[in-house]
Amino acid sequence: MINVTIWNEFLHERDDLDVREIYPDGIHVALAKGLGVEKDFSLRTATLDQPQNGLSQDVLDNTDVLLWWAHLAHDQVADEVVDRIQARVLAGMGLIVLHSGHMSKIFRRLMGTSCALTWREDGARERLWVIDATHPIAAGLDAFIELPQTEMYGEVFDVPAPDELIFLSWFAGGELFRSGCAWRRGRGRVFYFRPGHETYPIYYDERVLMVLKNAVRWALFDGNTTAKGIGEAVHQPVIP
Amino acid sequence: MINVTIWNEFLHERDDLDVREIYPDGIHVALAKGLGVEKDFSLRTATLDQPQNGLSQDVLDNTDVLLWWAHLAHDQVADEVVDRIQARVLAGMGLIVLHSGHMSKIFRRLMGTSCALTWREDGARERLWVIDATHPIAAGLDAFIELPQTEMYGEVFDVPAPDELIFLSWFAGGELFRSGCAWRRGRGRVFYFRPGHETYPIYYDERVLMVLKNAVRWALFDGNTTAKGIGEAVHQPVIP
Amino acid sequence: MINVTIWNEFLHERDDLDVREIYPDGIHVALAKGLGVEKDFSLRTATLDQPQNGLSQDVLDNTDVLLWWAHLAHDQVADEVVDRIQARVLAGMGLIVLHSGHMSKIFRRLMGTSCALTWREDGARERLWVIDATHPIAAGLDAFIELPQTEMYGEVFDVPAPDELIFLSWFAGGELFRSGCAWRRGRGRVFYFRPGHETYPIYYDERVLMVLKNAVRWALFDGNTTAKGIGEAVHQPVIP
Amino acid sequence: MINVTIWNEFLHERDDLDVREIYPDGIHVALAKGLGVEKDFSLRTATLDQPQNGLSQDVLDNTDVLLWWAHLAHDQVADEVVDRIQARVLAGMGLIVLHSGHMSKIFRRLMGTSCALTWREDGARERLWVIDATHPIAAGLDAFIELPQTEMYGEVFDVPAPDELIFLSWFAGGELFRSGCAWRRGRGRVFYFRPGHETYPIYYDERVLMVLKNAVRWALFDGNTTAKGIGEAVHQPVIP
Repeated sequence: MINVTIWNEFLHERDDLDVREIYPDGIHVALAKGLGVEKDFSLRTATLDQPQNGLSQDVLDNTDVLLWWAHLAHDQVADEVVDRIQARVLAGMGLIVLHSGHMSKIFRRLMGTSCALTWREDGARERLWVIDATHPIAAGLDAFIELPQTEMYGEVFDVPAPDELIFLSWFAGGELFRSGCAWRRGRGRVFYFRPGHETYPIYYDERVLMVLKNAVRWALFDGNTTAKGIGEAVHQPVIP
Repeated sequence: MINVTIWNEFLHERDDLDVREIYPDGIHVALAKGLGVEKDFSLRTATLDQPQNGLSQDVLDNTDVLLWWAHLAHDQVADEVVDRIQARVLAGMGLIVLHSGHMSKIFRRLMGTSCALTWREDGARERLWVIDATHPIAAGLDAFIELPQTEMYGEVFDVPAPDELIFLSWFAGGELFRSGCAWRRGRGRVFYFRPGHETYPIYYDERVLMVLKNAVRWALFDGNTTAKGIGEAVHQPVIP
Repeated sequence: MINVTIWNEFLHERDDLDVREIYPDGIHVALAKGLGVEKDFSLRTATLDQPQNGLSQDVLDNTDVLLWWAHLAHDQVADEVVDRIQARVLAGMGLIVLHSGHMSKIFRRLMGTSCALTWREDGARERLWVIDATHPIAAGLDAFIELPQTEMYGEVFDVPAPDELIFLSWFAGGELFRSGCAWRRGRGRVFYFRPGHETYPIYYDERVLMVLKNAVRWALFDGNTTAKGIGEAVHQPVIP
Repeated sequence: MINVTIWNEFLHERDDLDVREIYPDGIHVALAKGLGVEKDFSLRTATLDQPQNGLSQDVLDNTDVLLWWAHLAHDQVADEVVDRIQARVLAGMGLIVLHSGHMSKIFRRLMGTSCALTWREDGARERLWVIDATHPIAAGLDAFIELPQTEMYGEVFDVPAPDELIFLSWFAGGELFRSGCAWRRGRGRVFYFRPGHETYPIYYDERVLMVLKNAVRWALFDGNTTAKGIGEAVHQPVIP
């Protein structure tokens, strides 16, 4: 069983009628329904307005993979919660950052860069091309996913060169973007996936959900637990 | 079921008494026994002296992951067999290259470099340190594997910078080496693993076998099968 | 002084009136004029029809950076010439592969993959976006280069994940491409740059020439010449 | 002229007689003398005890490459100074982090990981092997640098996989370490170089100084200054 926690800021859906129409119970609930069909996923959600932003040590300790959606209120996530998430990622928890989550504290913390980009909210067409055919996150897809209406994100995407670059997006207006990027941090795996603006029903798209399901399985830790040096500097006596 | 083919040059074991004592039926048979305890592996072996070097199109088409051990007779592998293996790797077959297989035609073909290194056959001590704790190939190991007697391999290892660097070897004589390296080529995954000299009983070591089992599962293709452009240039009409 | 050799297949320009109109003396001569304004470049050209395809050992030994344009006759380049070029790259010569040169023997040799892609000759618009702002090959450019008419190249571009990804191309017809990629092989540096179809006057574009000038300087070897293990396996006695 | 600022915590040299004997004026002054022979370097130093830790906005704005040595008092560097350095790196300033600087706030900020490792202060022998012969930071060196007495640093070094791995260290006691690693962050280049413990006279070693000189030249920004998206998300109108 993979323990998945879906975190959502959950502000747009309460304040904005257009968004509420698409995601009446919030993006987190839509995602939980979409991913919940997988029998090996155990899902829970958490939101900004909950105590400790819904991410107590106990919740995080029982999370294998965390999904993160946010846009308006990155600054309202408590620094101690960000510290806690970072520590869990470095200890092996997977993290999947969605769309405008690129400017979240936790993503910027793990990247070390501004994570800035260019954007245009024009509802134009996007094509997400698979460029790494070896990658399990791209399994089951066609050569590309077409989304009829999206917000545009353009380069330069100010992140460290990804360890694995899986998707590139083409936008009708003339821009392109590294839309599916993977990094390793400590013992943890991090995946950024661009699609998912609040005013388009993107998280109901079966192919987008397929990517997220693939990403959850990829992000699940199955590496080495005994290597030293992850977390704090330790004195190493001579090993005979 | 994962179809694994273990290829061995099978010359040392027939010509050299010391080697025969350690691997009486050949390195391939020792490996097949060691890996054969896994219930999801279906194993076969192939050797240089067989017709088509044991690797007919049919054998390769029914191989998910190929292991390669060779040393004395790299040049005797037929070029058309090498072409065939390369095509299968680019189409998604996994390839695990062992020890002196670094100078094999197929490895040099996939790397594009000389794959040279420095070496010393002195039976001294080696420590293989895990340096990528996120990696499934390192699962279940301690911080390092110690091998009491090995041949030394030293840097520069003339290969492209690996996509993933998993093990580094320390040698008592003063050298070190990138001993566990992974690359992606086409739809296929390639893993080079250094241990395994013919005069030391390394393929009976449980931790070495654990690495190889992990590597077989990692090398199994689970990526994207529909992406265009793998294999030959194709005309792309406008997609409306 | 940087010794630059520009190699051109030189077939289209003799057989095809449309191409001759654009490049009357051949693509190699146009490039030599464009790059020749740099006072620290010493330029020569070489073509397929010359003895040894214009690339004798002596020419290669006196080449710091080799540019390669080809399309129709990749197979006519002699294998021994390809061997010689590969050896020089591994020894430190820079190589810049242009446009349809992606299917050349030397590029496929150095990559180990099919180097295939998808294509459409429709004269539509291309935008080459800079995505690595740290890179000297992108120095002096604006955020993107727009080319009004080009042949389209689409993903999947079947090459190893580049060590450095510098440009991505957007095409009006809905595709995108990794258009500026760098790899290290042995002691040598390899840069692939997509623009340059024979029926468009792309090699007269000042920004395209700026990229090529930057690339020549980047590809010039300034690394380490004494590291062992590049070229052939060497015995290493114990170093006290 | 390359403006180089050498930052030193400057505590050991005042409090510890053994260290003062080796570096009577501080590690920063020893480094400034060692690097100062280069005619194209303009050097200044800065220390923890100065106002703003010696790194005012003005000093940083006039620094092309910053070197960083610290050990005892990482926490005493002001957070606003760390913010300022990070912003300058993302804008193109080079950063060279030395030895125990791996636990500094600025390095951990740029890496996003714990940057931990294992260590042993035993004054044993170290060999730094060059493993990337293409790299300008390794120019002019032999196959390895031997340091007779050093502190040991061992893996796992909890940093993101380096964009370029240039040196690996072998230690007599059985450990190894990724001792020369390069990353790109924003428009800036970051190099970590392991040698340099305060109780060994390592910064007087000509080969260590050669690496640092090479690294300063490599870290100097010569990339692209006009790419958008570095620093803050910007609205992008349609470009006709």
